[in-house]
Amino acid sequence: MSEEVRERLLQEGIRLLREHGYHGTGIQQIASAAGIPKGSFNYYFASKEAFALAVIDRYATRIEEGIRAAYDRSDLPPLARLRAYFDGLLAAIDSAEGEHGCAIGNLLAELGDTNEILGAALSAAWRRIEKRLEPFLLEAQRAGALASEVDPRRIAGLLLSGWEGALIAMRAQRSTLPLEQFLETVFDRLIAAT
Amino acid sequence: MSEEVRERLLQEGIRLLREHGYHGTGIQQIASAAGIPKGSFNYYFASKEAFALAVIDRYATRIEEGIRAAYDRSDLPPLARLRAYFDGLLAAIDSAEGEHGCAIGNLLAELGDTNEILGAALSAAWRRIEKRLEPFLLEAQRAGALASEVDPRRIAGLLLSGWEGALIAMRAQRSTLPLEQFLETVFDRLIAAT
Repeated sequence: MSEEVRERLLQEGIRLLREHGYHGTGIQQIASAAGIPKGSFNYYFASKEAFALAVIDRYATRIEEGIRAAYDRSDLPPLARLRAYFDGLLAAIDSAEGEHGCAIGNLLAELGDTNEILGAALSAAWRRIEKRLEPFLLEAQRAGALASEVDPRRIAGLLLSGWEGALIAMRAQRSTLPLEQFLETVFDRLIAAT
Repeated sequence: MSEEVRERLLQEGIRLLREHGYHGTGIQQIASAAGIPKGSFNYYFASKEAFALAVIDRYATRIEEGIRAAYDRSDLPPLARLRAYFDGLLAAIDSAEGEHGCAIGNLLAELGDTNEILGAALSAAWRRIEKRLEPFLLEAQRAGALASEVDPRRIAGLLLSGWEGALIAMRAQRSTLPLEQFLETVFDRLIAAT
């Protein structure tokens, strides 16, 4: 039962922190969303910061699982699987599930260099996600679909940072066009040209 | 005198909102930074939201001025002037002046789709900055340094969103390497290849 409540707190935490940010989300709001009294929050987490650490870890794990599932499908060559992964994110955003951008990118923008503990957790989450993008590029390189002088780690980094930037542009333009244009530029021009 | 205080509030507001975000910055903090009692804040601005609107406008104007100054220099061809502008931003970040990223990108990530009034102001600011990047590309196109089928507006959008993403990656990696790699990719590979 308590494990179930903890899980509900984490799921609501992902939603609230992604949408309203760290300072914009109160413990009262988190507790209400999970259907528990505010006073019970500390039974599950010592502080809002400890809660945010758990939310960041859970969110990163969820993303890692999505990327790994995309990697494990065997019906497509590696770069097509990578693109299919991002196309899936785009489709989810279009259907409004992901309209508030990426929790990790949002929190990095909000407090990546002012909160040392959360900043370190966000850095670690970022690196975990980046690492999951590399195998597609390594496999493409082995298959000759990507030039051998390209650094897969660097392309993975550009993909992640460019996607985060496009998520910000999406909020500015209130359109998914920046995401579409980013994917087209990376997959049809940048990677294709190498 | 009151104009001077208002100006000081705006300058401190840019610094505080960029560093701590909207919800992470209190009126008390803003007033203290500008050296006025909290009770006087409303003499200058009706609310924190009205203050943030003025800060966003002032910040965008400052960026527009920097881009225009880079455009107006006559010693370099247009793409070199554009790159010099971004190299200047990078140098300022290295010297720690700009280490907290871009106020507009940070605020879009924090509340671009939850606060309608600030979201609209951020969208307008984004568009103003994007527009200032286009003349470099148009001029390069007229001079034959950029392929005629390229859409300057699209490249301007990719530059801005990619830079914002690299500023987030900078916070994740605690390094300016993502910014350097982004500029190299855009100027040495993407634009050069077109």
